[in-house]
Amino acid sequence: MDASMTLIYCVSFFSVVIALAFAVYLHLWVKRQPVENRTIREVSALIKAGANTFMRKEYRILAIFAGVAAVLLFIFLPNPIWSQEFEAVRNLQMVVAYVAGTVLSAIAGKMGIIVATSSNGRSAEAAQKGIEPAFLIGFRGGAVMGLAVVGISLFGVAGVLMLFGDTTISLGFSFGASSLALFAKAGGGIFTKTADVSADLTGKVELGIPEDDPRNPAVIADNVGDNVGDVAGMGADLFDSNVAAMTSALVLATSLQAAGSQFADVAMVFMYAALGLISSIIGIATARIGKGGTPTKALNSSTYVTSGVFVVLTALATLIFRGFSWRIWGASTVGLVVGVIIGLTTDYFTDDSKPIVKKVAHASRSGSAFTVLSGVSYGFISALPAMIGIAVSALAAYKICEPVGPQYALFGIAMAAVGMLSIVGMIISNDAYGPIVDNARGLAEMGGLGEETIRIADELDSAGNTVKAVTKGFAIGAAGLTVISLLGAYMSEANVALEALGRDLITGFDIMNPVVFFGLLIGAAIPAVFSAMLILGVDKNAQRMVAEIHRQFREIRGLREGKPGVKPEYDRCIDIATSGALRELIPAGLMAIIATLLVGFIGGPLAIGGFLMGNIVSGLLLSLFMSNAGGLWDNSKKYVEAGNEGGKGSEAHKAAVVGDTVGDPFKDTAGPSINTQITVVSLVASLMSALFAAFSIFH
Amino acid sequence: MDASMTLIYCVSFFSVVIALAFAVYLHLWVKRQPVENRTIREVSALIKAGANTFMRKEYRILAIFAGVAAVLLFIFLPNPIWSQEFEAVRNLQMVVAYVAGTVLSAIAGKMGIIVATSSNGRSAEAAQKGIEPAFLIGFRGGAVMGLAVVGISLFGVAGVLMLFGDTTISLGFSFGASSLALFAKAGGGIFTKTADVSADLTGKVELGIPEDDPRNPAVIADNVGDNVGDVAGMGADLFDSNVAAMTSALVLATSLQAAGSQFADVAMVFMYAALGLISSIIGIATARIGKGGTPTKALNSSTYVTSGVFVVLTALATLIFRGFSWRIWGASTVGLVVGVIIGLTTDYFTDDSKPIVKKVAHASRSGSAFTVLSGVSYGFISALPAMIGIAVSALAAYKICEPVGPQYALFGIAMAAVGMLSIVGMIISNDAYGPIVDNARGLAEMGGLGEETIRIADELDSAGNTVKAVTKGFAIGAAGLTVISLLGAYMSEANVALEALGRDLITGFDIMNPVVFFGLLIGAAIPAVFSAMLILGVDKNAQRMVAEIHRQFREIRGLREGKPGVKPEYDRCIDIATSGALRELIPAGLMAIIATLLVGFIGGPLAIGGFLMGNIVSGLLLSLFMSNAGGLWDNSKKYVEAGNEGGKGSEAHKAAVVGDTVGDPFKDTAGPSINTQITVVSLVASLMSALFAAFSIFH
Repeated sequence: MDASMTLIYCVSFFSVVIALAFAVYLHLWVKRQPVENRTIREVSALIKAGANTFMRKEYRILAIFAGVAAVLLFIFLPNPIWSQEFEAVRNLQMVVAYVAGTVLSAIAGKMGIIVATSSNGRSAEAAQKGIEPAFLIGFRGGAVMGLAVVGISLFGVAGVLMLFGDTTISLGFSFGASSLALFAKAGGGIFTKTADVSADLTGKVELGIPEDDPRNPAVIADNVGDNVGDVAGMGADLFDSNVAAMTSALVLATSLQAAGSQFADVAMVFMYAALGLISSIIGIATARIGKGGTPTKALNSSTYVTSGVFVVLTALATLIFRGFSWRIWGASTVGLVVGVIIGLTTDYFTDDSKPIVKKVAHASRSGSAFTVLSGVSYGFISALPAMIGIAVSALAAYKICEPVGPQYALFGIAMAAVGMLSIVGMIISNDAYGPIVDNARGLAEMGGLGEETIRIADELDSAGNTVKAVTKGFAIGAAGLTVISLLGAYMSEANVALEALGRDLITGFDIMNPVVFFGLLIGAAIPAVFSAMLILGVDKNAQRMVAEIHRQFREIRGLREGKPGVKPEYDRCIDIATSGALRELIPAGLMAIIATLLVGFIGGPLAIGGFLMGNIVSGLLLSLFMSNAGGLWDNSKKYVEAGNEGGKGSEAHKAAVVGDTVGDPFKDTAGPSINTQITVVSLVASLMSALFAAFSIFH
Repeated sequence: MDASMTLIYCVSFFSVVIALAFAVYLHLWVKRQPVENRTIREVSALIKAGANTFMRKEYRILAIFAGVAAVLLFIFLPNPIWSQEFEAVRNLQMVVAYVAGTVLSAIAGKMGIIVATSSNGRSAEAAQKGIEPAFLIGFRGGAVMGLAVVGISLFGVAGVLMLFGDTTISLGFSFGASSLALFAKAGGGIFTKTADVSADLTGKVELGIPEDDPRNPAVIADNVGDNVGDVAGMGADLFDSNVAAMTSALVLATSLQAAGSQFADVAMVFMYAALGLISSIIGIATARIGKGGTPTKALNSSTYVTSGVFVVLTALATLIFRGFSWRIWGASTVGLVVGVIIGLTTDYFTDDSKPIVKKVAHASRSGSAFTVLSGVSYGFISALPAMIGIAVSALAAYKICEPVGPQYALFGIAMAAVGMLSIVGMIISNDAYGPIVDNARGLAEMGGLGEETIRIADELDSAGNTVKAVTKGFAIGAAGLTVISLLGAYMSEANVALEALGRDLITGFDIMNPVVFFGLLIGAAIPAVFSAMLILGVDKNAQRMVAEIHRQFREIRGLREGKPGVKPEYDRCIDIATSGALRELIPAGLMAIIATLLVGFIGGPLAIGGFLMGNIVSGLLLSLFMSNAGGLWDNSKKYVEAGNEGGKGSEAHKAAVVGDTVGDPFKDTAGPSINTQITVVSLVASLMSALFAAFSIFH
């Protein structure tokens, strides 16, 4: 390892250490805050225990999955056991990297859950003193997750590359992170919506009891769901995106340097990631509501601070270090700016102070069919600006870097993704803030903290919802750019294999080539089928849970009447949500992986190029559609509940509730899981490229 | 013109003459059937008048649109007025071809409407005598439309090529047909669903009167809608697909022959089209219910007869004529077989004797949100087999023809589309049968023809619905293959322009090229936005009509009570549906065209390649999703109404009705209009390719 690489690893690890130290500091700060109300302590402990139950089961099943995957990886990758190129050490490295990817992501998720489940009650109590302290607890609790995810992901990527010095092995690490994300995001998504839908159906609709009534056997599962879906799930998803973006940039950077690049490409990747982490720390440290401010403004302004700091720091780095290209700085800045713009357009379609939410609420007056139709329509339209944004940022990043060469231009796109993801620490903080204050609101109600406290908790919660839409748009945009660079990484992997076989190298994927087209069409259908399977999974699982809730109300005497001392069996509901989520998730994940293998072994490496692109394009479209339509329906319902279009209890409200129920699995299960599906499939393709090249029916 | 071409034109025109003569014979046969019931005569006349009102308005607005387009075409195409290559005669030919495309398609649509609106009452009366005579009238009425569309489209394509001998001009003809299809299909789709939704909302839901109650001011508009949407609209859509398939095959065939092909490629295109027409005539002539048969079986078996005859006749032609390639026969047969398979899989997802419809009906027990969620999910899943089918048929057709050369292989794909569309005459007959017997059912009810007659009419209607799903799958599959060959046609047009400019020719569209990717992403978003605009259009328009219906019930005394002699003002509703449909349609159509121009002038010919492919892929996915989900919901509602899951009036029924209302604009407005949007955009791209090549920002 040369001196400059040593330096860059030092910088990376140093920033990781700072980030994790800051996370520990924030965690201790949160723990120091008081939580005295007995009910809140009890319920909070139940939520924590429930979340741990889910995560334990999830990690156990994941361990089996990862064990099987590890054996397969050892047998097949990077080179199959029977091939001449097989080296046991290298295949073992792949296994180690893969396992490290799953374990590190799991640790980050676990940390997030620990702090989130201890922040919720504290935030609720702090709300008695005012909005600022409650906000800070919620936000800093979320920030622990943000810093943990980004710090640990950078640690993992740098560590694996430093140890093994082989970017193909890095892909194994990334695949590990993706495997975990698939379980955490899709499984967590099914869990959370199973509980949410069942709790609403039996509680609000059938019995007419309030949302967080402790008589409802599903109420704890519902609160657990917010944590495992939005904290652990979203964290694993962005861990995965972040690792994938860095890894694909590294694959391209390494091949550029091997070809004698004039720039320090690998160093730039790490430096940008490290500076992103530093910027996030600064952004998190400066978050305050301040005088006359609102939580939404506080969250957004810290996002802008992080972005601004990142742009300045990377400019300084480019100025200081020889071998850092201004073009890459430009590409990365374009990525970041477009990310912010995508977030803002998402906001336009889902914020209830903007016209679209009002239109959908108004349509609800004519009945639920019109709520659905208008939400679907605006959901589709909302995908356009983000698609244009991704298209323009890819084109701009490419054109900025093209003068250096076409390979370099592709690297520019990868760095635009790194730029877009630079503020991911901040994004996760904002995102994890949501479920914490959502829980806090429920706890304030259950703990009987009084109307004013609930009002404050409500305000914090509503800011969480608004910001969530923005961060989701961001996450999808970043995933879009990442997978383009993964496609580049796939091509360079496939070419290594083709060269070894003495066949023609791939120079691109021509859509007029029917093999590419074949892959393209099938790839485009996969996200639709994947999300449909998840939605049906929620549906089936909710039916099981509703049956259990009915049983408890029937068999536990005094539960319905709220007799003191009578409690529902919360655990049973958590168990159902947990095992059902994992049972429904596996077929969907396998379907996507098997489709990739089939297309690869039928159509070969070219078909896979088309397959990945079809997957990206339709995946982006559908995940934007589903996430935005879901957010739109959710906020329309809230807008009606705030007294508009007839208010609570009106026909419009009933229709808006139907929209919200449809939107729930759209926005919290299927929509955001598509990201993960795309990454998993891209990585499977990259890892299998040598086998596809060797054994496919068509070429 | 050489002798062989003279011969082939003679064959084409001869088959056209036979088809049209047979259509006239069938029309006269239908007219000979008695219609004696006074109410039926009156209502039938109202429907006819309403349909004519819509078509007159539609054609008037279309005339303005076409006039503007004609002027623009003259100024810009094939070569702009200011360029050195400009020849006034050639640009004038383009205008003539364009106008001919619109006019011929309009004539075919008009013929269909005339016979459909005179078959409906006759079929109703014949149902008193039994199922066979009623079926024959419905089917033969539909067959007139089928034969007219296919006959006139072949006449137009052959005529334009014979007169001008220039396939670029043929694209103008195809563009004319597309313009009309856009108005007829999307406009008709908005019309029919506006009327349907408004009639249901005010009649069934608010007043609790039956579906076809003559007191409802929207009832005639609803019946008119079936005719203008499903007869004229679907006819124009398939006229368009058929012309586009033939034209793109001809563009490729001509360039192959110019390059010295060993085969009689142009002759094959015409021969296959002519034999498809002959096969359809045979299939239509043999359609009978027979002993122990059902209308569904009769419709399906005549489809199989047509397919079988076509395969045999084209094999014979290949045997007899020198210069006919067996490979092309293989490609065309693959296309046809896959078309039938796609139809059958569609049937699986939408037929109420199959499990999916039952599952959605069962989900309705838990409320309308679950009806919507399960329908959306199965709708997404249902797209997969058709996408695989299209992918496999394109790949197979290509591989079959590849040994001759890559250009020839592309021609193979075009001929697979021609093969899939060969039985289009039969498909349209089946499709137009639907609204005729649907109208007949309503007329039987209004005319008081008794329960047994209504039962027979119901059986005929239900067969229409089942067959409709199959034909829709077919139409989308054929459109998928057609646009691939249009992409080939676009490339060869763009290369002519690039060669003239002395620039590098396009050899393909590489998705790793960010200019292509830029187009791909934006192209993929367009069908989503287009369909959203149409759905919102139905929504807005229905609100206007509901207001008008409320006004009539308020102001016309005795209407609500059904006082004898008091009639609603049917015309006002028809007017609202008509002008609203055209008003809502134009922005959607312009949006798609303007997006094409923007992408073309920003990214140039390569970006347009990506744009078209993105458009095709997401367009296929969304139109399959929407058409199938809509059909699924419709049949689930009928399944519940047949007494399952609680039957009529149950909570499950209410939920199923919501699903059906959501599905209506999906399956009859947005879904099938996407086909047309794709074709229009592809043709705009081909026609503008020279301008894009000369004036784009990027290359």
